[in-house]
Amino acid sequence: MKTIIASHGDLAKGIMNSLEMIIGKQKDMYFESFQTQDSIETFTEKIQKHIDEADGKDILILCDIMGGTPYNVSALLSMKNKNVCVLYGINLPMLIEISMQKDTCTNAQIKEYVNSNLLNTAGFFEDPNK
Amino acid sequence: MKTIIASHGDLAKGIMNSLEMIIGKQKDMYFESFQTQDSIETFTEKIQKHIDEADGKDILILCDIMGGTPYNVSALLSMKNKNVCVLYGINLPMLIEISMQKDTCTNAQIKEYVNSNLLNTAGFFEDPNK
Repeated sequence: MKTIIASHGDLAKGIMNSLEMIIGKQKDMYFESFQTQDSIETFTEKIQKHIDEADGKDILILCDIMGGTPYNVSALLSMKNKNVCVLYGINLPMLIEISMQKDTCTNAQIKEYVNSNLLNTAGFFEDPNK
Repeated sequence: MKTIIASHGDLAKGIMNSLEMIIGKQKDMYFESFQTQDSIETFTEKIQKHIDEADGKDILILCDIMGGTPYNVSALLSMKNKNVCVLYGINLPMLIEISMQKDTCTNAQIKEYVNSNLLNTAGFFEDPNK
């Protein structure tokens, strides 16, 4: 599976840097940032290029937030390309787990795994003395 | 309330950049990155400095992942400082919402708000035709 992290600004680049610091260099994982000066058309072309180059292989696009441009562009492209799946709200615990599964899973398997195990990866530290 | 985003590598810097691209420059929000060359002691000193400078004001530390060094350091400091609260698994939808609430909320209020509304901010795009 090919994975693309897509975000407004530098989140995509930053989270990939954190991931690689923790579990090492990743293969077949890329990031694309939608910056203030970018047009929706240019960003669409960048994601489309990744899809074209994947040669029919499953592609999972990890987006920052539902409803933002990176998500909207990815969702539209997933409707035109049956091998594309789009996840929004990515955080580091999800990204680490997905990275460890991606080389042996299809999109359908990752989707089931994430839905069952990775949608509750945020919370508060609870001090037992407070 | 003072907020600090704390992560391994460049996630903290990257997500703050994305946030400010979407909702503008933030006051009283900082980021700290734990890099490969940093010691736990140095990172602890950086977070402690933020706590000292907050002058008793509530501090919310937004961490990348439970069990990582930024989280562990923050959790330990929150046990010694009653005005410090620690959230892990931060993503962009949570950060945007917290940024909009932080100037008028206490830690207790933010904690209740996040627990009630912001722990399910990730999911998949569902194509109605698939």
